[in-house]
Amino acid sequence: MSEAAQTLEGWYALHDFRSIDWTAWNAAATAEREEALSGLMELIGQWESVEERKEGSLALYAIVGQKADLVFMHLRETLEELNAIENEFNRSAIAQFTKKEYSYVSVVELSNYMGQPGVDPMQVPEISARLKPILPKSGHICFYPMNKRRQLTDNWYMLPMEDRRNMMRSHGMIGRSYAGKVKQIITGSVGFDDWEWGVTLFADDALQFKKLVYEMRFDEVSARYGEFGPFYVGNRLSRESLAELLRG
Amino acid sequence: MSEAAQTLEGWYALHDFRSIDWTAWNAAATAEREEALSGLMELIGQWESVEERKEGSLALYAIVGQKADLVFMHLRETLEELNAIENEFNRSAIAQFTKKEYSYVSVVELSNYMGQPGVDPMQVPEISARLKPILPKSGHICFYPMNKRRQLTDNWYMLPMEDRRNMMRSHGMIGRSYAGKVKQIITGSVGFDDWEWGVTLFADDALQFKKLVYEMRFDEVSARYGEFGPFYVGNRLSRESLAELLRG
Amino acid sequence: MSEAAQTLEGWYALHDFRSIDWTAWNAAATAEREEALSGLMELIGQWESVEERKEGSLALYAIVGQKADLVFMHLRETLEELNAIENEFNRSAIAQFTKKEYSYVSVVELSNYMGQPGVDPMQVPEISARLKPILPKSGHICFYPMNKRRQLTDNWYMLPMEDRRNMMRSHGMIGRSYAGKVKQIITGSVGFDDWEWGVTLFADDALQFKKLVYEMRFDEVSARYGEFGPFYVGNRLSRESLAELLRG
Amino acid sequence: MSEAAQTLEGWYALHDFRSIDWTAWNAAATAEREEALSGLMELIGQWESVEERKEGSLALYAIVGQKADLVFMHLRETLEELNAIENEFNRSAIAQFTKKEYSYVSVVELSNYMGQPGVDPMQVPEISARLKPILPKSGHICFYPMNKRRQLTDNWYMLPMEDRRNMMRSHGMIGRSYAGKVKQIITGSVGFDDWEWGVTLFADDALQFKKLVYEMRFDEVSARYGEFGPFYVGNRLSRESLAELLRG
Amino acid sequence: MSEAAQTLEGWYALHDFRSIDWTAWNAAATAEREEALSGLMELIGQWESVEERKEGSLALYAIVGQKADLVFMHLRETLEELNAIENEFNRSAIAQFTKKEYSYVSVVELSNYMGQPGVDPMQVPEISARLKPILPKSGHICFYPMNKRRQLTDNWYMLPMEDRRNMMRSHGMIGRSYAGKVKQIITGSVGFDDWEWGVTLFADDALQFKKLVYEMRFDEVSARYGEFGPFYVGNRLSRESLAELLRG
Repeated sequence: MSEAAQTLEGWYALHDFRSIDWTAWNAAATAEREEALSGLMELIGQWESVEERKEGSLALYAIVGQKADLVFMHLRETLEELNAIENEFNRSAIAQFTKKEYSYVSVVELSNYMGQPGVDPMQVPEISARLKPILPKSGHICFYPMNKRRQLTDNWYMLPMEDRRNMMRSHGMIGRSYAGKVKQIITGSVGFDDWEWGVTLFADDALQFKKLVYEMRFDEVSARYGEFGPFYVGNRLSRESLAELLRG
Repeated sequence: MSEAAQTLEGWYALHDFRSIDWTAWNAAATAEREEALSGLMELIGQWESVEERKEGSLALYAIVGQKADLVFMHLRETLEELNAIENEFNRSAIAQFTKKEYSYVSVVELSNYMGQPGVDPMQVPEISARLKPILPKSGHICFYPMNKRRQLTDNWYMLPMEDRRNMMRSHGMIGRSYAGKVKQIITGSVGFDDWEWGVTLFADDALQFKKLVYEMRFDEVSARYGEFGPFYVGNRLSRESLAELLRG
Repeated sequence: MSEAAQTLEGWYALHDFRSIDWTAWNAAATAEREEALSGLMELIGQWESVEERKEGSLALYAIVGQKADLVFMHLRETLEELNAIENEFNRSAIAQFTKKEYSYVSVVELSNYMGQPGVDPMQVPEISARLKPILPKSGHICFYPMNKRRQLTDNWYMLPMEDRRNMMRSHGMIGRSYAGKVKQIITGSVGFDDWEWGVTLFADDALQFKKLVYEMRFDEVSARYGEFGPFYVGNRLSRESLAELLRG
Repeated sequence: MSEAAQTLEGWYALHDFRSIDWTAWNAAATAEREEALSGLMELIGQWESVEERKEGSLALYAIVGQKADLVFMHLRETLEELNAIENEFNRSAIAQFTKKEYSYVSVVELSNYMGQPGVDPMQVPEISARLKPILPKSGHICFYPMNKRRQLTDNWYMLPMEDRRNMMRSHGMIGRSYAGKVKQIITGSVGFDDWEWGVTLFADDALQFKKLVYEMRFDEVSARYGEFGPFYVGNRLSRESLAELLRG
Repeated sequence: MSEAAQTLEGWYALHDFRSIDWTAWNAAATAEREEALSGLMELIGQWESVEERKEGSLALYAIVGQKADLVFMHLRETLEELNAIENEFNRSAIAQFTKKEYSYVSVVELSNYMGQPGVDPMQVPEISARLKPILPKSGHICFYPMNKRRQLTDNWYMLPMEDRRNMMRSHGMIGRSYAGKVKQIITGSVGFDDWEWGVTLFADDALQFKKLVYEMRFDEVSARYGEFGPFYVGNRLSRESLAELLRG
């Protein structure tokens, strides 16, 4: 039996991808639309207050292409809070103008492949901050779920810890070379959703997503052991640009 | 030909994942909603009576994310009883406000890999209790279906019984190390549904699902031979929290 | 080139899985529902007459779980008769309260792996009876489609006839050990539907489906060469229990 | 680099699988239905005129099972003509009573594996007739798309031309042994649709589809290199039987 | 770790595949349809003005088969502009008569496998023109997404740069042999969409798509390392032919 890496967990995450039901929205009376929009703004206001109290965080982006119109990425201390957010949204007036497209349930995770012996990682302030992060307000978001492959001779989970650690170190170095350009949040979803991890990237220049993911694909961890789910890319929405998206 | 492990079976299980049709629900008149809700409460009451008589069991949880809003996990002595539950639900007033999302048909199973020679397992009271279990009232549920892999050199069903027994023993030891933290119910679904087994986990701390499943993934049984379907995670619903979910 | 096994074919089969549209059904007026129900009973009556004249057969079961509510398994001499059954159903009043879920087109088949040299199988009365069978009225049905695998070194179709014959003989012995408990009908679907065979099992104790399919999975034919599609399991419906399912 | 086989192309093909929306159809007024039916008959009449002028061809069949109710297989000189057929159908009254189920875009193809050196195949009248064929009026149709496999050691496209030619010759001999029983039309779809080829078979005895495809499956070309998509089987529709299907 | 090829990026691309909701369209009043059509023509007019200003480009084609009725391929400097195009379309009157079918988000890319040492590719005018291309007005379009395979011994990303460069050179020579017949635009989508690249081909003779893609399939880059998604083929739409498609 191969040794599992130690992991540290922080806030739970819900990526909630929704589409606008444009036929219903376009057909609605102005008053009905304005009421729905103002209800949505109120929800966003509440979520922003949670972020201000550092009890969670929100990222709101418009997805490019037909996969979804919007993504709400929520971070919270518990699964109950995430569920309450969903239910509150579903009972609101805007909900009847939206459709479910995709969601992802995970938890912010730091793996301890890079851990140093004799150091308690929870005592490192930078680490505890990374476990309960305030999400960046960058211009763009990229999200994709992924697995480590288990296929015949390419089986990550059968490798010795030492090999995995070395490969993860080289992998991490690529990530670090994008420091200042791409902010990366890894969430673990084993036991929570259909892939093992979610990767959420933030950048002001969307091209950096492509540069980073493509460069990593040549790294053995990804080349031999990475399996990737659907990719979503989006543009940041302020309250103003959200209102404009809906009002035209 | 490789020897099949002996299995013991108890109650049949139906995992019934449903979504609320929020557009219809939000548009319904209060009286109509209250009637539907009270019909649902009555059904739940009947199912709880069955549990009190130890003729079956019910677990009711709110699923996190868009895959479903609710899961009803029912245990019963026969497939006819499970079918009757479905039909009664479908004919009830709440049904028109819900949509089918996913279901799983299986039967509580104990495999005899750990059996001791000369001992009739049905005479062991702990075993017969585990075959017809009252489901825990833990804060969280995790469900996923799985197969044992049959792919070229990684073919579980071609292994000698002795090898399978040894691997299952090591696997079981990980499970036992979570005793008191995670309660695990294995249901067999060969011949009943699309995967070979269903795994239902209960815990008060949802993070333990991730810890357990991740640790097991490095065990050869999972690493080389495990194939996993969709994962569902949920929060326990009392009658009160179910009513709140629907009423807001 | 490997030699194809000889096969014998009998009646064509249509497995027709349907769901009730419960929202429409529950909303319909009693008179409308009763008319639809009586039209369905009339269709079933016609199909039973065909069975009495030994010109076909019908099995009607309630499927457990969300995959479908009902399965109609029809056997007929020609594809035209199967198509006529579908169209008559679709034009009937009950059709507007049902939804298509899954169907399977195949033909009752006996493979000649077990054939004896010098014996014309069509002269064996048991064989011709098995090609045009009256379907059992057992308490439970199990249906699944399957392929023989063609993957690199696990390629059934590249094996010598002798090896395939030996494996099929061992496979058949497991089936025979369930005689009296499980009745098995094999239908071939190469050229007709998406898998190569359909397997329909009938038993009074549904647990025997699991026992049989699980035991076979350790047999090399299934372990190395079997690929399995979706599984459906159901409970027998008499006219009375069908009416009860719909009327409540 | 492996040498590509030369191919000859004739008419473009559109296989257009549609279902009847039976709920809408059954609910429509008789006059509305008759108008839609007569509009459909008019379209069919136009398509038959095109066939009489040898500028295209039409095959119209009722599909068995739930995958579709009808298939229209159209052959035309250009993709523009196929698109015009679709659009004319979509704007007709019958369209609102049908649903899209599946389509396939390809071009009639003859591969030159069997070509003789020094002979210009376009000068062989039988070949040019096969490239622009009038579709048979056989009792049954079978359609499936397929690929040649590219998987590790089973990679058709990495084989030397000579090996591919020898395998295709043996493959063709099976096809020829069904002459008079099954008529086969191969259409190429590389660059046009999701598989590399479409295979359309015509026969008066549907069982011959199964015999032919099953026998071929043991041939190395199919056994090692064939990947098969969904299979559709149908019964010929005359104008009278089409009207009967719809009117009852 | 294998060395990633350098890439150059230009305009972002959105392939937006839509179907007409023919039932809604056929049922709409003439005035409503004309208003929707004229709104669509206005949008197209705006997009053509952007192309005239060389700030983007538009290709508009009718897709053959049921996958979609229309594709709008948009090129723009930023993801924000692509998103604005989507939103403007969704808020327009024509939107309620269309359905989403498929979309693809990518960026025009030139790979530097063919780069010459000591030459800055951005100083080559032909290269910068190819990064921000005005899309051809050819009679036909072909689109498909693709990956480079990572499967056991067929793993593109584990190959040395030199091997990849040699294979890409041979691959490019096939493409160049179609110069004047097929125009090829490669867009990269790593980090943006579910495949690694999009390939968009333009030709006046659609048969050249088949010839090119089939010939390339025997080339080792495609034969061993290419994985292909869905294929879409279409016919060019002028404003007049678009109006005719909708008006009949």
